[in-house]
Amino acid sequence: MHTILVLGAGRSASTLLRYLNTEAESSNWQVKVADLNLQLAEQKIQGLQKLEAIELNITDQESLRSEVKKVSLVISMLPARFHPIVAEICVQEKVHMVTASYISDEMHVLDQAAKDAGVSLMNEVGVDPGIDHMSAMRMLDRLRNEGAKFHCFESFTGGLLAPESEDNPWKYKFTWNPRNVVLAGQGGAVKFIHEGRYKYIPYHQLFRRTEVIDIEGFGRFEGYANRDSLWYREVYGLEDIPTIYRGTLRRPGFSKAWDIFVKLGATDDSYTLYNSEDMSYRQFINTFLAYHPSDSVELKLRYHLKIDQDSDVMEKLEWLGIFEETKIGLKDASPAQILQHILEQKWKMNPGDKDMIIMWHKVQYDLNGERKEVNASMADIGEDLTHTAMSRTVGLPVGIAAKMILNGEIKERGALLPTKPSIYNPILNELELHGIKFTEHEL
Amino acid sequence: MHTILVLGAGRSASTLLRYLNTEAESSNWQVKVADLNLQLAEQKIQGLQKLEAIELNITDQESLRSEVKKVSLVISMLPARFHPIVAEICVQEKVHMVTASYISDEMHVLDQAAKDAGVSLMNEVGVDPGIDHMSAMRMLDRLRNEGAKFHCFESFTGGLLAPESEDNPWKYKFTWNPRNVVLAGQGGAVKFIHEGRYKYIPYHQLFRRTEVIDIEGFGRFEGYANRDSLWYREVYGLEDIPTIYRGTLRRPGFSKAWDIFVKLGATDDSYTLYNSEDMSYRQFINTFLAYHPSDSVELKLRYHLKIDQDSDVMEKLEWLGIFEETKIGLKDASPAQILQHILEQKWKMNPGDKDMIIMWHKVQYDLNGERKEVNASMADIGEDLTHTAMSRTVGLPVGIAAKMILNGEIKERGALLPTKPSIYNPILNELELHGIKFTEHEL
Repeated sequence: MHTILVLGAGRSASTLLRYLNTEAESSNWQVKVADLNLQLAEQKIQGLQKLEAIELNITDQESLRSEVKKVSLVISMLPARFHPIVAEICVQEKVHMVTASYISDEMHVLDQAAKDAGVSLMNEVGVDPGIDHMSAMRMLDRLRNEGAKFHCFESFTGGLLAPESEDNPWKYKFTWNPRNVVLAGQGGAVKFIHEGRYKYIPYHQLFRRTEVIDIEGFGRFEGYANRDSLWYREVYGLEDIPTIYRGTLRRPGFSKAWDIFVKLGATDDSYTLYNSEDMSYRQFINTFLAYHPSDSVELKLRYHLKIDQDSDVMEKLEWLGIFEETKIGLKDASPAQILQHILEQKWKMNPGDKDMIIMWHKVQYDLNGERKEVNASMADIGEDLTHTAMSRTVGLPVGIAAKMILNGEIKERGALLPTKPSIYNPILNELELHGIKFTEHEL
Repeated sequence: MHTILVLGAGRSASTLLRYLNTEAESSNWQVKVADLNLQLAEQKIQGLQKLEAIELNITDQESLRSEVKKVSLVISMLPARFHPIVAEICVQEKVHMVTASYISDEMHVLDQAAKDAGVSLMNEVGVDPGIDHMSAMRMLDRLRNEGAKFHCFESFTGGLLAPESEDNPWKYKFTWNPRNVVLAGQGGAVKFIHEGRYKYIPYHQLFRRTEVIDIEGFGRFEGYANRDSLWYREVYGLEDIPTIYRGTLRRPGFSKAWDIFVKLGATDDSYTLYNSEDMSYRQFINTFLAYHPSDSVELKLRYHLKIDQDSDVMEKLEWLGIFEETKIGLKDASPAQILQHILEQKWKMNPGDKDMIIMWHKVQYDLNGERKEVNASMADIGEDLTHTAMSRTVGLPVGIAAKMILNGEIKERGALLPTKPSIYNPILNELELHGIKFTEHEL
């Protein structure tokens, strides 16, 4: 009998838990769901009869170890900074581990010890990172085997709204961590390579250097670049590729309007504003504009950032209520925290709203003397506000990977990524049964 | 007999050493000039017969202490990070200390110990910080005594070229540390207050929010804001002033052209470029612009940053040679390091060139029911490339402060700033004898 410990019962765990419950029913697994908040864990497993909720403070290493010892596999849905602590105990106790987070340096360090202990530490097996790697590698490996020489690889992912829920001028709502959305693109220049030339984009230009992308059946999107595309050359075996670019998808017009906040300085998280508690939204915007005794905030903003009168940007900004005299009410808040607070009032999922995860790859290659291009796209729409597309696309591959380790289908040991055919093929195949499927178009 | 130890014989020490030699001759002081590089120290004291050069590695605490012990006052012209180490030894050995750098937290911590030891630790007594504080405080204290209620305080300083040496389109050359010029404005949002409203400017907008300033006899300048003006409210006793703004002076047009480098991302010091050694200046600029198979770097730059064909910005950029195929030749360099390298070829002081330090204060106040304004300005022109205006305006107040401590004219002990009349009046008076003089205009 297989035994699993799930750490963290947050929002993105819903679909994972449902999947584990189904598997537990058919294969007689024992699954414990541990959270600092027992009530949350109990609530999460309602209706899932094969699961058991327990209370666990993961910073209490004794308790953590005693629970890890009891199982054969741990799934960590905790914030990424906790993974190394869990992984170390897993290796010591010879227990496998699966996470949806980026592989960290600490995880790399554990590689040999995990191999020696016969333990699999599977990382980056959610959606992004996860499904992006697996779907890209499947396409690239197939073309490589046919003899393709790669010229260009582009990959974009977006956590967006299902088309029927796009009911505001931004066509956007928070479908995952709002703070990450506000800070997106910060923390270092964007790096990529285009036709053999290294390219760098500073943060304050990022949202003005977008690319338009049409995805059949879903219309037009725009993509802005992710932080470091260059690193993926190694991961994907594309060391000598002249063009590689990874980015994030939004609906057209989003980035141009978002850029206003970047240009103002309203996404800055490095300092706090004097008296932020008593300021209004309007005063918050005015704080980034030059003083004038009578000119309106609206006109100063338009003039300073050269926004045309008939631009759709003003409609988007006005819709957010940023010119209203509503009190902020947050003490010692940074500009980014205030902006997040304002956005959270408006970019809120309503009952009935559905999210969508959309992914798009483009590969250009030379084969038999011909330049060819193939695009692949996937769109997954959430079932509801519990089994969101985000929860589905993160939780299902994590659950499948866990099953494959327990079944012996994944035999590799050490710190792993799902970039080998023996790992990604079964996962992608099972994802198709859940409706998460890539469609390819040759051009 | 007074004994002085000068630490560091760098560029800005020249006029200080000449001043100390003159004082040593008339008052029979003994002055040692210590540097890690003995040759440099020997060269610096050539012709200054009362000075003695010694070799000293300031990271060797034993040697440092044994030299500090022998004197009654230490002047540190070392980089600011070394001051706390020196100050601690000075307090322990009951030796006074003078520096031209900003008072650090470590220096504040030593305040009580210095008082207990009967030691003066005088900080911020160069030009900026230094002469700016002293001249502002003299004006503010006088008006305060007359009963003025302050409405606005602005203060700008520039390290520029003497008008006769302004022979390039930027009207600018490096007259001090080039790295600080390239990184100016980075490291946090600009903060000030205008008519009671807090204002913040992000780095990437800083050079587009300038103020025009006319200074009688020297023509027109532009000023961009310094990092944190708010802190000076406390230093100057202006806690409730509705407007306070400190900035840096350039000749008009400088900031608009410099902004191009900021917008490109060419002043970023947070990462290194791939293959920077073999890149050309032109490729460096191209690295920040979108790929195109045939469009020129010039046109892409103009289009991306909306530079008009007839703008003087392009003349400034072209004059720097940034579109040329000259090799950079710097390994693993950051954008900021490469930009500095390019600028250093062009913004170089030639024999015969002179620098200029220019300072301007504006005070608006209410007195007897009337709104009044007074401006004060000072311009000092370098004698030559040794006794530059920078060296004069840093070295002379430092030397005078040292003399006043030794003479007992400064009796205060602890960590000090030159913001009291008993300190700033004698220093400003003696500076006038050296031609460093403020002119006031009432408006």
